[in-house]
Amino acid sequence: MNDILANDFGIARELSVVEDTLRRSVRSESPLLTEIAMHVIEAGGKRIRPAICILAFRAVGGRDEKLRAAIDAAVAVELIHSATLIHDDITDEGETRRGRVTAYRKYGVHNALVAGDFLFVQGFKYGQFLHPDSIRIAAEAYERLAEGEMLQEQWKNSVSVPEEEYLKIISGKTASVFSASAQLGAFHGGGTDDEIFMLGEYGTNIGIAFQIVDDVLDIISDEHEIGKSVGNDLKEGNMTLPLIYAMQDGVDRELLAQIISRKNKPPELIRSAMEMVRKSSGVRRSIERAQYFVRKAKEDIEPLRQSVYKEQLMRLADSVATRKY
Amino acid sequence: MNDILANDFGIARELSVVEDTLRRSVRSESPLLTEIAMHVIEAGGKRIRPAICILAFRAVGGRDEKLRAAIDAAVAVELIHSATLIHDDITDEGETRRGRVTAYRKYGVHNALVAGDFLFVQGFKYGQFLHPDSIRIAAEAYERLAEGEMLQEQWKNSVSVPEEEYLKIISGKTASVFSASAQLGAFHGGGTDDEIFMLGEYGTNIGIAFQIVDDVLDIISDEHEIGKSVGNDLKEGNMTLPLIYAMQDGVDRELLAQIISRKNKPPELIRSAMEMVRKSSGVRRSIERAQYFVRKAKEDIEPLRQSVYKEQLMRLADSVATRKY
Repeated sequence: MNDILANDFGIARELSVVEDTLRRSVRSESPLLTEIAMHVIEAGGKRIRPAICILAFRAVGGRDEKLRAAIDAAVAVELIHSATLIHDDITDEGETRRGRVTAYRKYGVHNALVAGDFLFVQGFKYGQFLHPDSIRIAAEAYERLAEGEMLQEQWKNSVSVPEEEYLKIISGKTASVFSASAQLGAFHGGGTDDEIFMLGEYGTNIGIAFQIVDDVLDIISDEHEIGKSVGNDLKEGNMTLPLIYAMQDGVDRELLAQIISRKNKPPELIRSAMEMVRKSSGVRRSIERAQYFVRKAKEDIEPLRQSVYKEQLMRLADSVATRKY
Repeated sequence: MNDILANDFGIARELSVVEDTLRRSVRSESPLLTEIAMHVIEAGGKRIRPAICILAFRAVGGRDEKLRAAIDAAVAVELIHSATLIHDDITDEGETRRGRVTAYRKYGVHNALVAGDFLFVQGFKYGQFLHPDSIRIAAEAYERLAEGEMLQEQWKNSVSVPEEEYLKIISGKTASVFSASAQLGAFHGGGTDDEIFMLGEYGTNIGIAFQIVDDVLDIISDEHEIGKSVGNDLKEGNMTLPLIYAMQDGVDRELLAQIISRKNKPPELIRSAMEMVRKSSGVRRSIERAQYFVRKAKEDIEPLRQSVYKEQLMRLADSVATRKY
């Protein structure tokens, strides 16, 4: 996986507390339940959502005595995020995630589903340490996520997804949680309403950029290099931005449309569709679109007072758009 | 389904507030998400868990000004309960629940799984209204539930499940949430530590009785009459109490063991296994065992001061053991 947080953005200490707390939160009397939860937590990547939360906290002037509340909010968000990852892999039939075999493949659908539920419950349990407003902000983001997933499902195998609809889907399924993470940090850091709002916008925009880049990587990546299977969106019949743009382009629209709208796609058809999209302007235009949202994100937080954390938020935005290409 | 709460136990007003709150809690911008959540909420049966919560609240002398907190706790418990029902049906491949086709059959696995997650999130969101201790009590019960599910899975297709292990499984997957419901009611009603403890024990014991009766019904019921498919435990390879007892009995153990341990069981084999269990002493002995736990539950709350609500808790315990036979 891309080392988006290879640099720790100057918050290594805070992120290590997040990490410890996460690991402590998934202990259970069922060793297998702990093992599956840890399987997902450990494959949890670079903790970009907690990083956004903590940077936002610091950027509005959050002091150490309030840090615990921000970290607790970040942990609850990450626990529920991990729950949704397990369940996503079940429905998407993902084979690997971040270089590891997915939980349902390793432990079976039943156990993976229950472990996802267990992680939801741990998120709920963590609510005992949270401010009521934190619970509301985090929960509303995950409501948006579920709505985004439903919307995506409704467009499944359709080639005529408008770009605005795609943006609505990814705003729900990805950007809402990025936005909530930033808002939670700003809220606990004692940010003004304006600051909480602008950091929420920042989160939304880098979340959108992040998902567009993910969707591009699903088309252009080498499977072994990014540690997860590729061509999944095509296989699942999800119309992503590179596909939407490719359909507007010089590729053989008819053929691409036929492949996308098929319910069962043999691997060779997926490969040839990927090839068509790669040869189209879809990839380049999608990257440009991601860069546009990164610029918007950076503009969102321009009014924040100068600080090392504001600079790190700017860097984090840039790194979202520049991973791996 | 058995009309376990055909009588409303003198708390009709409180239960109708639970009902309204539940329905309000599953509103979403995705009409389909609301529809699936409502599909499950409406098939939610007799609200035995909220009823236990409210009766426990009243039985320790809880007054109207604290009622809202108890109802909120009951709603959170019921939202998460509904989430687990949707997910259970997916892994158990249940076809009907309370006379309705299951959510995943009607809406597909993806949508049902997401709707379950959405209900978890609504439970989490509801945490903003809860006392931190309420969150902890409810969450720990659902942790036990997940652990019970895992334990059951580990014994799948095994004929040698000891009775104590079966009791451990159902204590986790069913009784823990009954116990939490009672504890939450007693806690918010201002009960003493002793009262909270004894009501927790009461909940555990009627939860165990409730699950044993469920497992008996899965063997002896008529599918159309109880509104859900029968023989599921056999089909799924879950060793329940009537099966454990049947194996100790005059039935053809070898043949029954062969059927139970088969991974794929054709319907005619399931029917003949059900017939064997019905002819054994397994059903009668299981019912006696359920009655034993009902008696224990009633003894648990004997020390409570006399009140109409204590009497109702006694009646509720009795009705758990007497549904449908």
